Amino acid sequence: MTSPRWAVEAESTLLDRVVFNDQGLVPAIAQDVTTREVLMMAWMNREALELTLREGRAWYYSRSRQELWRKGDTSGHTQHAQRVRLDCDGDAVLLDVVQVGPACHTGSASCFDAEATGD
Amino acid sequence: MTSPRWAVEAESTLLDRVVFNDQGLVPAIAQDVTTREVLMMAWMNREALELTLREGRAWYYSRSRQELWRKGDTSGHTQHAQRVRLDCDGDAVLLDVVQVGPACHTGSASCFDAEATGD
Repeated sequence: MTSPRWAVEAESTLLDRVVFNDQGLVPAIAQDVTTREVLMMAWMNREALELTLREGRAWYYSRSRQELWRKGDTSGHTQHAQRVRLDCDGDAVLLDVVQVGPACHTGSASCFDAEATGD
Repeated sequence: MTSPRWAVEAESTLLDRVVFNDQGLVPAIAQDVTTREVLMMAWMNREALELTLREGRAWYYSRSRQELWRKGDTSGHTQHAQRVRLDCDGDAVLLDVVQVGPACHTGSASCFDAEATGD
């Protein structure tokens, strides 16, 4: 066995520094590396974060379905993490991603795209 | 009395569509309108979001101190919201902000700036 290595640019101690909440989850923000749009916010447990760092595909934890899911496995709209960062107090994750197709299940590029502007 | 108006670009029904968690909170992501950096993630209760929409200054709710706080009141590093959006399922908020000075209490421009890259 060779020693494991990150497929993703990330601090080597990242996993040990994450402050998961009392449900074992941490919010994860995905930002498009090209457009710089914030695409979505979802939740990760430790396993989802480990898988993301290992595979370079974004994994999340569904609180409603209580299961891990890999972004794009159903829709084909895969998300490829290039860099993973923690915030200063370790309780939020930021992913720089290459997004294939729309990030949102509604077909919008971003889950934050739906707003009207006051009218 | 004149009718209230948003100081911030936001969907008029935004407040009614927010899905607060069982603690009455919603995660809020602040993105710099100029640099496009994701600056921080914090929490808002309904009052913090209402104040942000009304004032155009970013308000958050501190879970540890259990109180509202207005970004920059202590540090001087104020945050001015230009646009507020909800995600597709209403359980995350995205703020486009003009950030005065560093967003992070560590002095970094972003709370996600502290990472080393694998070394």
